Amino acid sequence: MTRLFRRNHRKVALSPGTVEYAGERKVEKVRITAIDYAPDRFEEREITSVTDCAPYRDSRTVTWINISGLHDTDMIKEIGEIFHLHPLVLEDIVNTQQRPKMEDYESYIYLVLKMLAYDDEAGVIRSEQISLILGPTYVISFQEKDGDVFDPVRDRIRKGKGRARRMGADYLAYALLDAVVDNYFVLLEKLGAQIESLEEDLVDAPTSELLQAIHELKRENILLRKSVWPLREVVSGLERAESRLIHKPTVPFLRDVYDHTVQVIDAVESFRDLISGMQDLYLSSVSNRMNEVMKVLTIFATIFIPLTFVAGIYGMNFAFMPELGWKWSYPILMAGLAVVAGIMVGSFRKRGWL
Amino acid sequence: MTRLFRRNHRKVALSPGTVEYAGERKVEKVRITAIDYAPDRFEEREITSVTDCAPYRDSRTVTWINISGLHDTDMIKEIGEIFHLHPLVLEDIVNTQQRPKMEDYESYIYLVLKMLAYDDEAGVIRSEQISLILGPTYVISFQEKDGDVFDPVRDRIRKGKGRARRMGADYLAYALLDAVVDNYFVLLEKLGAQIESLEEDLVDAPTSELLQAIHELKRENILLRKSVWPLREVVSGLERAESRLIHKPTVPFLRDVYDHTVQVIDAVESFRDLISGMQDLYLSSVSNRMNEVMKVLTIFATIFIPLTFVAGIYGMNFAFMPELGWKWSYPILMAGLAVVAGIMVGSFRKRGWL
Amino acid sequence: MTRLFRRNHRKVALSPGTVEYAGERKVEKVRITAIDYAPDRFEEREITSVTDCAPYRDSRTVTWINISGLHDTDMIKEIGEIFHLHPLVLEDIVNTQQRPKMEDYESYIYLVLKMLAYDDEAGVIRSEQISLILGPTYVISFQEKDGDVFDPVRDRIRKGKGRARRMGADYLAYALLDAVVDNYFVLLEKLGAQIESLEEDLVDAPTSELLQAIHELKRENILLRKSVWPLREVVSGLERAESRLIHKPTVPFLRDVYDHTVQVIDAVESFRDLISGMQDLYLSSVSNRMNEVMKVLTIFATIFIPLTFVAGIYGMNFAFMPELGWKWSYPILMAGLAVVAGIMVGSFRKRGWL
Amino acid sequence: MTRLFRRNHRKVALSPGTVEYAGERKVEKVRITAIDYAPDRFEEREITSVTDCAPYRDSRTVTWINISGLHDTDMIKEIGEIFHLHPLVLEDIVNTQQRPKMEDYESYIYLVLKMLAYDDEAGVIRSEQISLILGPTYVISFQEKDGDVFDPVRDRIRKGKGRARRMGADYLAYALLDAVVDNYFVLLEKLGAQIESLEEDLVDAPTSELLQAIHELKRENILLRKSVWPLREVVSGLERAESRLIHKPTVPFLRDVYDHTVQVIDAVESFRDLISGMQDLYLSSVSNRMNEVMKVLTIFATIFIPLTFVAGIYGMNFAFMPELGWKWSYPILMAGLAVVAGIMVGSFRKRGWL
Amino acid sequence: MTRLFRRNHRKVALSPGTVEYAGERKVEKVRITAIDYAPDRFEEREITSVTDCAPYRDSRTVTWINISGLHDTDMIKEIGEIFHLHPLVLEDIVNTQQRPKMEDYESYIYLVLKMLAYDDEAGVIRSEQISLILGPTYVISFQEKDGDVFDPVRDRIRKGKGRARRMGADYLAYALLDAVVDNYFVLLEKLGAQIESLEEDLVDAPTSELLQAIHELKRENILLRKSVWPLREVVSGLERAESRLIHKPTVPFLRDVYDHTVQVIDAVESFRDLISGMQDLYLSSVSNRMNEVMKVLTIFATIFIPLTFVAGIYGMNFAFMPELGWKWSYPILMAGLAVVAGIMVGSFRKRGWL
Repeated sequence: MTRLFRRNHRKVALSPGTVEYAGERKVEKVRITAIDYAPDRFEEREITSVTDCAPYRDSRTVTWINISGLHDTDMIKEIGEIFHLHPLVLEDIVNTQQRPKMEDYESYIYLVLKMLAYDDEAGVIRSEQISLILGPTYVISFQEKDGDVFDPVRDRIRKGKGRARRMGADYLAYALLDAVVDNYFVLLEKLGAQIESLEEDLVDAPTSELLQAIHELKRENILLRKSVWPLREVVSGLERAESRLIHKPTVPFLRDVYDHTVQVIDAVESFRDLISGMQDLYLSSVSNRMNEVMKVLTIFATIFIPLTFVAGIYGMNFAFMPELGWKWSYPILMAGLAVVAGIMVGSFRKRGWL
Repeated sequence: MTRLFRRNHRKVALSPGTVEYAGERKVEKVRITAIDYAPDRFEEREITSVTDCAPYRDSRTVTWINISGLHDTDMIKEIGEIFHLHPLVLEDIVNTQQRPKMEDYESYIYLVLKMLAYDDEAGVIRSEQISLILGPTYVISFQEKDGDVFDPVRDRIRKGKGRARRMGADYLAYALLDAVVDNYFVLLEKLGAQIESLEEDLVDAPTSELLQAIHELKRENILLRKSVWPLREVVSGLERAESRLIHKPTVPFLRDVYDHTVQVIDAVESFRDLISGMQDLYLSSVSNRMNEVMKVLTIFATIFIPLTFVAGIYGMNFAFMPELGWKWSYPILMAGLAVVAGIMVGSFRKRGWL
Repeated sequence: MTRLFRRNHRKVALSPGTVEYAGERKVEKVRITAIDYAPDRFEEREITSVTDCAPYRDSRTVTWINISGLHDTDMIKEIGEIFHLHPLVLEDIVNTQQRPKMEDYESYIYLVLKMLAYDDEAGVIRSEQISLILGPTYVISFQEKDGDVFDPVRDRIRKGKGRARRMGADYLAYALLDAVVDNYFVLLEKLGAQIESLEEDLVDAPTSELLQAIHELKRENILLRKSVWPLREVVSGLERAESRLIHKPTVPFLRDVYDHTVQVIDAVESFRDLISGMQDLYLSSVSNRMNEVMKVLTIFATIFIPLTFVAGIYGMNFAFMPELGWKWSYPILMAGLAVVAGIMVGSFRKRGWL
Repeated sequence: MTRLFRRNHRKVALSPGTVEYAGERKVEKVRITAIDYAPDRFEEREITSVTDCAPYRDSRTVTWINISGLHDTDMIKEIGEIFHLHPLVLEDIVNTQQRPKMEDYESYIYLVLKMLAYDDEAGVIRSEQISLILGPTYVISFQEKDGDVFDPVRDRIRKGKGRARRMGADYLAYALLDAVVDNYFVLLEKLGAQIESLEEDLVDAPTSELLQAIHELKRENILLRKSVWPLREVVSGLERAESRLIHKPTVPFLRDVYDHTVQVIDAVESFRDLISGMQDLYLSSVSNRMNEVMKVLTIFATIFIPLTFVAGIYGMNFAFMPELGWKWSYPILMAGLAVVAGIMVGSFRKRGWL
Repeated sequence: MTRLFRRNHRKVALSPGTVEYAGERKVEKVRITAIDYAPDRFEEREITSVTDCAPYRDSRTVTWINISGLHDTDMIKEIGEIFHLHPLVLEDIVNTQQRPKMEDYESYIYLVLKMLAYDDEAGVIRSEQISLILGPTYVISFQEKDGDVFDPVRDRIRKGKGRARRMGADYLAYALLDAVVDNYFVLLEKLGAQIESLEEDLVDAPTSELLQAIHELKRENILLRKSVWPLREVVSGLERAESRLIHKPTVPFLRDVYDHTVQVIDAVESFRDLISGMQDLYLSSVSNRMNEVMKVLTIFATIFIPLTFVAGIYGMNFAFMPELGWKWSYPILMAGLAVVAGIMVGSFRKRGWL
């Protein structure tokens, strides 16, 4: 099973709409929490039996039900029944290889998002699938594991700050979406810092580890692109959706999160250009250094090889080599060799090799 | 005749609508099976005479007729007459060089699909053309050879599981389409694993076999792209088709298979980027290694060539070389050479070559 | 005058609509043949005087007038007058540097096509311009020289096979268009075979002739692309044309030829990717071989250069070199050199150079 | 914190619509100036208390309020209240990592622009965010620091030259936009000059500093692209906006500034092509020079290495080497070596290496 | 001031609509000629005072006013007043850094075109801006300097040949546009010939001058692209313009010039591909040659370096080297060396290096 492309093999033989968890089990126990609020009211509770969710469906207060952990497929089917979700939605919630998308089922909107986080220890990007169901008065969010990405939203609702409690379920869905998108910026900053640090090293010494690191960066950026381009369609789809679930005051906020998504895309595309530029720079840099090495070799070899030949000539043991007997032969030869060497150095200097 | 591009040459001189099989004969005998079902009924039989198909055309139960083997063109023409198929459709069914497409002939919809499978023995991808005819109460599928890709669908109908028997012919066509698309995922996984394994080898040792393997991978990916991009149009065409043959409850399922197709395209495009990245990495890696080799050569040559020259000087047989007679010449010279060598090593270290 | 881009220079100073032949004269004598048919009638004759064409214009039977050779501009002007063709159409017919296009002049449709054929002797692709005029009951085709590409169509009409005689002038135009497009497949097969054969050579030995051949292939593919992309627009324009000249039963046939055109484009684009991949492969392959060469050189030089230096040392003629007089010096030295050489070989083996 | 991608980290946990300054504080004190004019009237004043702005909101004369410095968020909130600005607008004004955009809030239009200036000292491009609010009779502009980019506009209003005072607030907004776009031309000229100068150096000597400079240029161009592409959408959005805030006489002016933006994009894209061409040129140039170096080395080595070997042969101390005693051995050998050397030189000349 | 990007610096501080000439003064004196014609009438005169143009504005005959030289801005302003031109049009006429565009001002259409001509002496492409004003019965053309590009049109009107005098001002504008586009073909032929000649040189000897020439060609093609892509929009805009200034009989002629423009674009894009292919070919070719050089070096070095070492061994002056005294040592050694050399040559032959 490979990291690059993974899919539940058994799926192939299954009926469409079958709810079977496709990921690794990332938490021990599924945790369900419900937050129910109105401008003047706030209730937060842990839910142990799924049927406890039912009353929230038709209540007039806004309810946010958060499910952490997707391996308990029976529970998810039960939720699907209570909130009348389409079997394909349930299948997609547990099948964590989805790409971001938005589907409008009229009585509710289904959103798939990808949460990307940089795992500092392993030095890789981890991807988590987040599903949102936006109904008339409720939002249900599904996470693969407990996470702190939604904590700021939870806090704002608790404290009743800003618009948090005054607006409806669509604003809550927006807030969760915004939290996910904001998270991308943290990742971008990390990648940006990595690019900058690699670029500096590139100038100093183009080692093969560096090449490896550039390639790794490229892969991460490809992964990021794959998540963020469809995200743009999701957000713009939501903004333009003519659904009665989205109220007009929420639209400017969706436009705002759309702008953020486009900013992320801009950065990803710039990174792509920069990384590709770094690879070119690397190649040019190696070529350049090889050229330097070659020059040194050539200078030494072309100066000394002919001289060595001349020395070899006078090391021959022929009986009749008149020069050998002359008194000034040695100093004259040495002077001659020095002149030859000097001419060669001059010629290299003219070519700019020295 | 080449693997890259093959087409029945005789075709050129033939009248349009001529039904002539363009592939290799992959099975001995054409096999026709019919499955006829309703929510409360199921019948499966082997058909020996094509005329036995006729009653299914207008029956109210859903019928799936599967034909394996396309070389018996008379039989295919007979089927065409029974189900009133356009001659061009018949021509396309047997001409297995089609690209995936959807054609709406009002009384039926014609689909061409490509089944790709990795042939582990030969180490290549094999492509098979699958044609589907979706009529009001029947689906006719044409395969080049017997295959097991439709077995899960057959099983679900047999057992009456899920929606299988409750829905109409359009759902059956969807199920077959979904089976074909699901099959792509198996292939993607294989390719993904190959890419990963090559990437690891690339780090260790960039041999020319590796280069060959990358090129092979690239070719396979090009083939995959060629099949999967038009498939997307086929599925989205089906989803948006305003045909009375597609009923509303089937649309979410078509949207689901569309999502899968887009996922496949995403993966193919990522693979493309990764493979192209590997090629760059290979080139950089070879350059880098060549640079290392050059450095070693240069270090040795530039240190020893001058020293050898000096030794050559004192190997000359001139009668008058006063140094030769001095007592300390030899140790002094050796010390001098050691100093020169030391200076050179120092200079290489400064340049970072050692 | 260059092969890459040629245009009648005098044209610049001419009034628009001037009919002046822009190509080389490819035939001695212009040849006009007329085929007139109806379901139950067939007449084929050679026409010597252009005015003989006039009666066919308004006859109710379908007439196909084929003109081979474009240098007799007077004759072409005469035809233009008889069939009321726009001066710009006449100009385009004889100006053989057009790109494929379709123009709807209401009372007739004007098509420009490019016939590409591989000239086996010269080893290049030859391009010929074919113009079609589709009127209500006639088709006029203009070829630069006599060719056999339309022979199958002629045969089918002669023998009254298939739909050939039962349908109107629009079907005839389709049949001619289809013959031209079918011809591309022959070319694609040739190119495909060339690519395959080059790819095999690439693995064995990357010579500079191969590089030249790849470049040639690339050029041919660029030429092919230039012809085939506009062709697609032509065919789709014809298919979607809301002209009373195109009757409904012909539309599926146009859709079929459109599919073929898209197949050609697919192949051309794949070839493009493959050729570009071959070029990369070539470059990597050369780099790789250079690396091998360098390793051999480096191994020999780094082993023997230091040894030679040592031999040089003991070849010096200093009077006082005590080692020279010792009895075991020679065998000890030789053993020492063997050890040094062995260590170096070991170190190369460790680096994977051997 | 990296230059490549910066964003206020605290933002992540904040409620949407929170006004918190995200940049570095570029000025000590926020400065507000107001210019109020009509065809026959002109008043310019420094504003100390924000409430002084209120009367301008509903006055019939045109008012331009310019705010330099964005760190005083309370003041900006106050302005937002006076002019009824949406909280998200206020958030975007102070969050200086926006991309250029236009938002139509019906009672006013909000524009985000990027001012790019080349900092000659640091040798880098500095980016400043400029926000414009276009109301019915007023324009509010927000700058990060005092700048002289708007001085020409201020001057024209002061002197009542041209259309300056005769037209409405929309023309004023256009004038400010035009000033920003005109500023890009200054930058383009600088980049163009840098490209030209680098290109000349490239011919003379491809050093690694040059490579560095090309890479730097590429980065700057990526930054420029990122600013200028969305700007095009902004201007075209403004031109096509069916807002009652934009009057018909202003439209040709907006079309003019649109043309300028497209000109900037054209230049940026050409620069991109040129820079990428320079990089290719660099690589080819280095390869070429390495080839030259190699040739010199090869010529010297292949001529002298065999000669040295022959000299070595006759330097051997075998007792029985008959040639050593012959009288003409030495001159014959020397002549032989000269012939060998001559043949080799000839062969190099034939290969074009000399 | 750079060739790559030039713009009037003072412009930045100017009011929009200011008419200030931005180019170099290419002629001494502005020259105005007027041609007034009708099917049965022809008058050609030199105009000295701009006011003489006024009567032509409302006359029913077609008038073509040609202005050569743009530095006399007062004169241009006067023309603007007579023909009621928008100030921005006048600004664009004299600002010769425009990109091709079409603007419909209802009572007239404004066209900006680029005339490109190859300056054989300097070996560069020169660009000239041509502006056309198409009014109901007049065309005004502005050229930077006297040129002969419009001579054929002038001739045709003079001689009353073809449609020249029978059709209206729109046909005249078409004829001028056609003359400009036809001029591109001359340039394309020059570039095509250059590409072909460079390609042949590339095969023979890849020198660095060639590389320089390829780069130059690339730059010229970028310039050409920049002019010709917007031209296509201009012509298609004109063709589709629902302006009462364009009459129906002129439309096929505009379509014809549109086809020519697309032909130019096709050629430019092919050139682009070819040039980029040449650069790759160059790089591969250099690599290939370097490989050849390396092989020669390696063959010589690896054969002779070990042999030289052996000769060095027997040149050593050890007192006790028994082989030295043996009678057959010398011939045996020589034979041994020959065998070693032979084995190495054999091994090189096996590797395909010889």
